[in-house]
Amino acid sequence: MRLLGKKKSFKIGQAPGSAVFTGTKKLESVKINLISYNAEEAEEFEIGSLEDLSEHLSQKNRVLWVDIIGLHDEQLLEEIGAMFELHRLTIEDILNVEQRPKMEIFDDYLFTELQMVQCEGVDSQIEAEQISLILKGNVLISFQEKPGDVFSFVRTRISTGKGSIRKRGADYLLYSLMDSIVDHYFLVLETVSEKIEVIEALAMNEPDTSVLQKIYLERRQILALRRSVYPLREVISSFEKNADQFITRETKPFIRDLYDNTIQVIETMEVFRDMSSGVLDLYMNSLSNRMNNVMKVLTIISTIFIPLTFVAGIYGMNFDFMPELRWRYGYFYVLAGMFVSALIMLGYFIKKKWI
Amino acid sequence: MRLLGKKKSFKIGQAPGSAVFTGTKKLESVKINLISYNAEEAEEFEIGSLEDLSEHLSQKNRVLWVDIIGLHDEQLLEEIGAMFELHRLTIEDILNVEQRPKMEIFDDYLFTELQMVQCEGVDSQIEAEQISLILKGNVLISFQEKPGDVFSFVRTRISTGKGSIRKRGADYLLYSLMDSIVDHYFLVLETVSEKIEVIEALAMNEPDTSVLQKIYLERRQILALRRSVYPLREVISSFEKNADQFITRETKPFIRDLYDNTIQVIETMEVFRDMSSGVLDLYMNSLSNRMNNVMKVLTIISTIFIPLTFVAGIYGMNFDFMPELRWRYGYFYVLAGMFVSALIMLGYFIKKKWI
Amino acid sequence: MRLLGKKKSFKIGQAPGSAVFTGTKKLESVKINLISYNAEEAEEFEIGSLEDLSEHLSQKNRVLWVDIIGLHDEQLLEEIGAMFELHRLTIEDILNVEQRPKMEIFDDYLFTELQMVQCEGVDSQIEAEQISLILKGNVLISFQEKPGDVFSFVRTRISTGKGSIRKRGADYLLYSLMDSIVDHYFLVLETVSEKIEVIEALAMNEPDTSVLQKIYLERRQILALRRSVYPLREVISSFEKNADQFITRETKPFIRDLYDNTIQVIETMEVFRDMSSGVLDLYMNSLSNRMNNVMKVLTIISTIFIPLTFVAGIYGMNFDFMPELRWRYGYFYVLAGMFVSALIMLGYFIKKKWI
Amino acid sequence: MRLLGKKKSFKIGQAPGSAVFTGTKKLESVKINLISYNAEEAEEFEIGSLEDLSEHLSQKNRVLWVDIIGLHDEQLLEEIGAMFELHRLTIEDILNVEQRPKMEIFDDYLFTELQMVQCEGVDSQIEAEQISLILKGNVLISFQEKPGDVFSFVRTRISTGKGSIRKRGADYLLYSLMDSIVDHYFLVLETVSEKIEVIEALAMNEPDTSVLQKIYLERRQILALRRSVYPLREVISSFEKNADQFITRETKPFIRDLYDNTIQVIETMEVFRDMSSGVLDLYMNSLSNRMNNVMKVLTIISTIFIPLTFVAGIYGMNFDFMPELRWRYGYFYVLAGMFVSALIMLGYFIKKKWI
Amino acid sequence: MRLLGKKKSFKIGQAPGSAVFTGTKKLESVKINLISYNAEEAEEFEIGSLEDLSEHLSQKNRVLWVDIIGLHDEQLLEEIGAMFELHRLTIEDILNVEQRPKMEIFDDYLFTELQMVQCEGVDSQIEAEQISLILKGNVLISFQEKPGDVFSFVRTRISTGKGSIRKRGADYLLYSLMDSIVDHYFLVLETVSEKIEVIEALAMNEPDTSVLQKIYLERRQILALRRSVYPLREVISSFEKNADQFITRETKPFIRDLYDNTIQVIETMEVFRDMSSGVLDLYMNSLSNRMNNVMKVLTIISTIFIPLTFVAGIYGMNFDFMPELRWRYGYFYVLAGMFVSALIMLGYFIKKKWI
Repeated sequence: MRLLGKKKSFKIGQAPGSAVFTGTKKLESVKINLISYNAEEAEEFEIGSLEDLSEHLSQKNRVLWVDIIGLHDEQLLEEIGAMFELHRLTIEDILNVEQRPKMEIFDDYLFTELQMVQCEGVDSQIEAEQISLILKGNVLISFQEKPGDVFSFVRTRISTGKGSIRKRGADYLLYSLMDSIVDHYFLVLETVSEKIEVIEALAMNEPDTSVLQKIYLERRQILALRRSVYPLREVISSFEKNADQFITRETKPFIRDLYDNTIQVIETMEVFRDMSSGVLDLYMNSLSNRMNNVMKVLTIISTIFIPLTFVAGIYGMNFDFMPELRWRYGYFYVLAGMFVSALIMLGYFIKKKWI
Repeated sequence: MRLLGKKKSFKIGQAPGSAVFTGTKKLESVKINLISYNAEEAEEFEIGSLEDLSEHLSQKNRVLWVDIIGLHDEQLLEEIGAMFELHRLTIEDILNVEQRPKMEIFDDYLFTELQMVQCEGVDSQIEAEQISLILKGNVLISFQEKPGDVFSFVRTRISTGKGSIRKRGADYLLYSLMDSIVDHYFLVLETVSEKIEVIEALAMNEPDTSVLQKIYLERRQILALRRSVYPLREVISSFEKNADQFITRETKPFIRDLYDNTIQVIETMEVFRDMSSGVLDLYMNSLSNRMNNVMKVLTIISTIFIPLTFVAGIYGMNFDFMPELRWRYGYFYVLAGMFVSALIMLGYFIKKKWI
Repeated sequence: MRLLGKKKSFKIGQAPGSAVFTGTKKLESVKINLISYNAEEAEEFEIGSLEDLSEHLSQKNRVLWVDIIGLHDEQLLEEIGAMFELHRLTIEDILNVEQRPKMEIFDDYLFTELQMVQCEGVDSQIEAEQISLILKGNVLISFQEKPGDVFSFVRTRISTGKGSIRKRGADYLLYSLMDSIVDHYFLVLETVSEKIEVIEALAMNEPDTSVLQKIYLERRQILALRRSVYPLREVISSFEKNADQFITRETKPFIRDLYDNTIQVIETMEVFRDMSSGVLDLYMNSLSNRMNNVMKVLTIISTIFIPLTFVAGIYGMNFDFMPELRWRYGYFYVLAGMFVSALIMLGYFIKKKWI
Repeated sequence: MRLLGKKKSFKIGQAPGSAVFTGTKKLESVKINLISYNAEEAEEFEIGSLEDLSEHLSQKNRVLWVDIIGLHDEQLLEEIGAMFELHRLTIEDILNVEQRPKMEIFDDYLFTELQMVQCEGVDSQIEAEQISLILKGNVLISFQEKPGDVFSFVRTRISTGKGSIRKRGADYLLYSLMDSIVDHYFLVLETVSEKIEVIEALAMNEPDTSVLQKIYLERRQILALRRSVYPLREVISSFEKNADQFITRETKPFIRDLYDNTIQVIETMEVFRDMSSGVLDLYMNSLSNRMNNVMKVLTIISTIFIPLTFVAGIYGMNFDFMPELRWRYGYFYVLAGMFVSALIMLGYFIKKKWI
Repeated sequence: MRLLGKKKSFKIGQAPGSAVFTGTKKLESVKINLISYNAEEAEEFEIGSLEDLSEHLSQKNRVLWVDIIGLHDEQLLEEIGAMFELHRLTIEDILNVEQRPKMEIFDDYLFTELQMVQCEGVDSQIEAEQISLILKGNVLISFQEKPGDVFSFVRTRISTGKGSIRKRGADYLLYSLMDSIVDHYFLVLETVSEKIEVIEALAMNEPDTSVLQKIYLERRQILALRRSVYPLREVISSFEKNADQFITRETKPFIRDLYDNTIQVIETMEVFRDMSSGVLDLYMNSLSNRMNNVMKVLTIISTIFIPLTFVAGIYGMNFDFMPELRWRYGYFYVLAGMFVSALIMLGYFIKKKWI
């Protein structure tokens, strides 16, 4: 996940509203899928040309989901924009894949941009992709760069007619897609939680520099995640409050529910943030504890031997008259004394819990 | 207490409003209790079937408390939902036991979800259970997974007719149950307070790694507690402000009082949070103090013996002409000198308060 | 001062609005004083019975201050509550002496609860006592557990007729009592300030563990003080904004002034909080500085003697051919050399400011 | 600058609104200056008595600036208060020189209290003095304890007629005085900035305990400054928003400008606060770096000599059969070996950048 | 970039609204450029005198951009101010180049001041320059001290007619200039991001004092940047909300977009701020790790040799009866024993991962 969502340099200086794709091309050609459904049936089409598409759009008593995969063909997107009478800035925002999540309400359509996050597992990075959604009458248009299975659950529900999705309008479809996106945040948070636990165990037991790097990496990921979640809340809040002309009364409670879920995502995130700071403290603690223990043991060894060396030094002196030197068992007495005093010192250190 | 209230993974991808129980089954079968009372009398029934229940519901001049224990029977809950004409999302929320506390006001009923916390003692963890309450006319329905004695005080007051509960409506019953829940927060906070004191004493006197783990555990508990208390305040504030259609004028001051209590819970919590950070500092301090003292003592021992060893080294030199070596009592003079200088150094260290 | 204002455990499970005294009984019997005054004269009575009291209450053209000292007689307080037609919750709040400061406005009376703080001197703890005040028409009722001289200045002003208090109504009396309470916060803050200065000097000059405990104690005191001051601001703000029906236009500017004073108390408190964190840093610094200095001196002693010992070791070797050993003044040369090199090392260390 | 703006103890217990001077008397007698001007001319009078003053006040078509220097004569101030029909609390506030800056709007006059700050240079403390300003019709009254040159620029502009001050009313005069006060904050901040730079250089190069004390002193100064600046913003904001009856439309943009300046003062202050924390970190860092370097050098010396001493010890052993001892140049071989290994160790340490 | 945006000392005491240039003169003479365009054509003129300029101003059906470079000629600026009927304070603000960014709306013109930031590369400092913009009818006046290529993209778009700029009014031109300024913040942030990465690598691998200085410098830069970005948001927010009389409905969505970009700048900034604190931690960690490793190695060397020296000391004692001394291979046995025990200790340390 990119941390800094900065505008691409080559974008600077362009006229505002100019359609320039800022992402990385991931598909050969743009793919357009159309799902058309009502309570009775659901059909899926692969759209070859815009004429083809405009034909389908004439069906007024159905919900039409136009799913556009691949954003690099700026020309085509401008044509689609013209077809649906979108504002120039909307097209520019769709193409600029580093946008902050937002919802904008135009006279006859609603436009929202979101970050879809995914994380494969504990060892992989969080990946974010921008999804743009436009709701205009009975048509919902979604834009994404990479083909993915983000919305596959929704597609399945439409085709199987499971749940109430087929009985409701395009606003409910929009809600369902946003719900999918929020659900993916829960999945990513679950992975983050596991990662933190792994790092915590490492920090406690094997605090080395690689753990520090892992902690920093994790904190950055959480920082990046926060950057996309907070605007998400604003988006959904604005969806609930300002989009009354686009959503039916029946869909409203679902959006309120979605908002509650987003709050839960945010609060969980904040807990993770606190925890990741906690992990850093833990790491620092473990490390300094470990270091202290090493130094303590080494110092204790020196402390035991230095006085003994002193005694040996005493009897290494060359005075003419040193009575002990003449004793028969002086040497052994001294050795024994040294041994005993070493034991006493050791015992004292152990009793004091210094070892 | 679970820290992360995340949506269960197997819940992801489900159609919104689908009734899936996300908790752990704790009872063989669902138990339904009905308490029916008015100012004169109170009766308690164990309900076998929904038909049985619907019969009782016809009593319009009584307050009816339907207490449903056990949430795993999704089928039954959907039927109950249908019986009381509850929104699909309400049923979903009741079943999803990791919800954030909230209050929702529907056209003809009020729905609230709360966390009920309990803590057995200083050595046990805080446990949280979700309680869902629905107020619809003269009926109050409560949902919980585990049978427990949370509401036993309320039950006693109803059956004995103590206090004014029997003279008031279902809104006062709802208030009484919420009051019980807030009271349990006070009990849990009392335990938390004791735990912090125990850990504080440990941190001051026996700072070892197990204390660090205890501190982290305690901080997590407080973090988790905070996560359930803050929404609680929102719930009760919304109860006071937006639920006018469901509560009588007489019950209002009690809710205001309840709100004050919740604020007190939150402020106490924040104090505990500050204190638990303080304990960490205290631990770090004690630990480093202790370490420093060990190192100081060890270094002092070395410092005393190293100069003495040097003196012994001097008289261990093999120069042909070293007059002291020839003195009759040279050896004893030197020993005495060493002893005296060791004493002087010791005295100096003691005077400087280094020992 | 108790930090945690928690509800007493034996209070849990009681019916809301039940009158249970949660404090510690400090007087044998409840004492009721009545001060009755108008612009011309002021009288003070000791009230024996409630009948006695109700007689006095008939005087409508005077301000009546009923001062009730001792809260343990729940029966009596319930009777007083009935006499003045107070809400059940008001009586409960008066008896529960761990309440958060608050102001509640009822139809015909104004009820406020405050913490009165006192601190005898630098060596004693801050003590807090709950004061409940009720303003109803021309009657002001004050409740407190301990007899004390908190309001003695006000009493003196009433009896001597000094200031304008006798010329004004019961609302001005209420203001005067609250002003007394806020003034006592200033006195306590003065003591806190002195304490911090004492601790700061200790932390700078004699950093030992007892100082750490003092710092923690002080921080807790400030935390506890904050807990009672912040709600105080709310109380006075609400007094200024919502109590228009109870206060005259002339008293209003005084309340605004009181509010300014409370803000000053809070800001001073926050400064103290910052300062007490500063003291902790200072302590840690002093301690580690001191420790470092000890270690440095000790290490310097070792560092000087270890090379000298090495030289002594050289000439303690038993080689057959070591020309220096045969020199006439070899021994003295070596001694002198050692002395000079010790001096050089010392000089170097001093020059480098290591000693 | 006093940090704690606490109410003087001897003030506690006084009737509210009682006029007691809480400052230190700095002048023998109170001095009253009157500057009277209109677009054509400006006159300055030294006022001997209140009768004298009231004569001048009859001039309605001129702006009158009454500058009262010296606050200790409570009697006189009460008379002035009576003369201008000021509220009792206004007089009390003027006399109480530890007030929080504030602006109060009465029916026919506007009263504001401000802190005027001054700092002589890098070595001197910030000094604060309370200035009270009253705007009533065409009269502006200023109260201050010490005679000073704070307003000298304004006086000069009036007497020389430079700028537009003479063409405008008393409200513009009030603005000009407040602008002077805010300008002095900029001057003080400039000094603070220089002080921080000086301390920073010290912390980097000569980190000793005196620097620590300087840092703490500086932080306190900034804390104290903040305490007077934040209310200043409130004052000027309230001046802009609520004082419409006292200021003309032409003066309004100037007040807005003044407000912008105050915001700039506050933001600069916050930057300084951050910087002073940064200096503390820097100091701690420098100190521990320095300490570490000392310990490292000392430890390296020991580390080089301890193995050498061991070698000397080897050849100091008294075994009968030690062939090296018999070698002709054994002694010199050993000395050379010691020298070489010392060099190797030194080289290794240098290569590793430990020295 | 100057951190402290303080008012210049020589400015203190000046009459408010006096036109004094506070910057540094960077050009010999003031240059005035005029770009005049409509949808069909665009012309650029270099203006020699104000008469010249006023001639051009009579063209009402064109957008006129008056670009004034060089602010030191106070006389000329006052004349320009008079020509366009600007408020005295506006002229003062334009000349005072240390102003906080702001937008002010006058009766017939809109005035805004912004900081334009630039950074040449990783090794250079961020430079800020104040830009003042005035929108009055079809005329836009821009003031800047240094000639620069900030607005060159806009100039190009006007002259080539690329984008829609030529088809729109002066309000769109104002937007375009502000958009240029915000775009430059993105460029600067990109450099900051690179700098942080460079410093981070240094902190991780070569933590020395120069890195510390770099970190402090970087933090200051970010602090300074923040100081100019936050008011920028206020400016653009106020532009969107309060400037309706000056902007057309078509330009509105662009300003909303600009606001979103500013929010993105701020959020990125905050992330950088967090990261720069993280770098400091990282540095401290690396440093203390490194130090600890040095001390550990040195201590291990001592620890190995001290016991060996003790053994040597033993056999250096001069007891008459020490049987080992008489053994044929005693010396070699001891040497071997020493070698073996050194190996054992080394092995133990390596096994424990202490080396």
